[in-house]
Amino acid sequence: MARFRLVVEYDGTPFVGWQRQDNGPSVQAALEDAVFKFCNERVNVFGAGRTDSGVHALGQVAHIDIARETPPDTLRDALNFHLRPAPVSVLSAAAVGDDFHARFSATRRDYLYRIVNRRAPLALDRHRAWQVLAALDAGAMHAAAQVLVGKHDFTSFRAAACQADSPLRTLDSVDVRRDGEEIRIALSARSFLHSQVRIIAGTLRNVGEGKWGTADVAAALAACDRAAAGPTAPPDGLYLVRVGYKQSA
Amino acid sequence: MARFRLVVEYDGTPFVGWQRQDNGPSVQAALEDAVFKFCNERVNVFGAGRTDSGVHALGQVAHIDIARETPPDTLRDALNFHLRPAPVSVLSAAAVGDDFHARFSATRRDYLYRIVNRRAPLALDRHRAWQVLAALDAGAMHAAAQVLVGKHDFTSFRAAACQADSPLRTLDSVDVRRDGEEIRIALSARSFLHSQVRIIAGTLRNVGEGKWGTADVAAALAACDRAAAGPTAPPDGLYLVRVGYKQSA
Repeated sequence: MARFRLVVEYDGTPFVGWQRQDNGPSVQAALEDAVFKFCNERVNVFGAGRTDSGVHALGQVAHIDIARETPPDTLRDALNFHLRPAPVSVLSAAAVGDDFHARFSATRRDYLYRIVNRRAPLALDRHRAWQVLAALDAGAMHAAAQVLVGKHDFTSFRAAACQADSPLRTLDSVDVRRDGEEIRIALSARSFLHSQVRIIAGTLRNVGEGKWGTADVAAALAACDRAAAGPTAPPDGLYLVRVGYKQSA
Repeated sequence: MARFRLVVEYDGTPFVGWQRQDNGPSVQAALEDAVFKFCNERVNVFGAGRTDSGVHALGQVAHIDIARETPPDTLRDALNFHLRPAPVSVLSAAAVGDDFHARFSATRRDYLYRIVNRRAPLALDRHRAWQVLAALDAGAMHAAAQVLVGKHDFTSFRAAACQADSPLRTLDSVDVRRDGEEIRIALSARSFLHSQVRIIAGTLRNVGEGKWGTADVAAALAACDRAAAGPTAPPDGLYLVRVGYKQSA
């Protein structure tokens, strides 16, 4: 048995999410089926982050154990061949030790949330960003977001379905920038709660529209009550950009 | 009758092209149908550039004449409402004089050709860029491209189907830059021949791969023979970015 680390890009639109489920196609199942077609082995593909339906990845990380001996680049190309036509692409494959675990060894996750701030519908960025019609103040969003940085009880920014044992998380950074009609929210943490990034994005939209101030975001965080924060932004704008590990940080 | 200028974004993937044709959905027909739904008038929508099937636009310009009196922003919103679910979006509408013609008044067209230079298939950029596997030298591509700048007989860079009276065109600029795994070719001219940008992109790929040098591109141009230039790059990577007019240049 040899363990491989895979870096994976996908368009989350047609999937029920990362995780294998009974109700539709998942990224995990697409990868597991591709592995089976390649080497006739039924494996579990372990992912660093269980992205929801419609959420994209530029650099999801996963690991698999397979018995068939194979050079990593051959594995990458074979999986990509068998993944077609699913919009999932293995960017790289590397041999790793069996102490490597895509999820539990991860020390950092970077997410991006894309808002396109304009009145006209999205033709080219449909399913790739959240369209917000009202003019947003990215500077105010950035300033307010800074109250979320650090170690906090993020109960207010956690989906009801969240299965994490603790609502405590340390948000290392959140950066909000406007580039033309696009607003990009970049976030980094060791790990995130279920829907945490999307609830942060929905809350910061309230700030960008001028409905909320920095103090309101601080109060929402302190309330430790999901109802105190803003709405959950749609999955379309969310991208898992990168997963960091000690050996590659 | 009042004339309106429309700036239009679209995903060219599901269309037979800009121009109305019998064999499938076109962007022009989508817009004409939306106008009809809005004001019950059958109009011709005149576009600045007749993009081919699969070619995208970030800023196509078109004009229409309609009898129904309407504020431009209302027209924009109504057309977008009736365009759904087609991936076509009217970014802006403005009242213009009847001496304005989207195609004949245009003094400049900017195109972008996107190459993603990597081995792994495109998941998020599928239909949005040309995937080239072999490593490309963007600097060599840029240098070679400069021999195309200026006024030339572009017969070698013109599709057999091209209906232009003359193969003479003045290419104002072509700029090739690498940004990570992406290579962006930006071109500007008063007007282009049919497939000119795609044949330039296909030819520059030969240069990027090291098969051709700058002298080969110069020789291909001088040959005035389509067979002397490189292959026609796929439509997926091509974007009509902007159309310029004297009054807005």
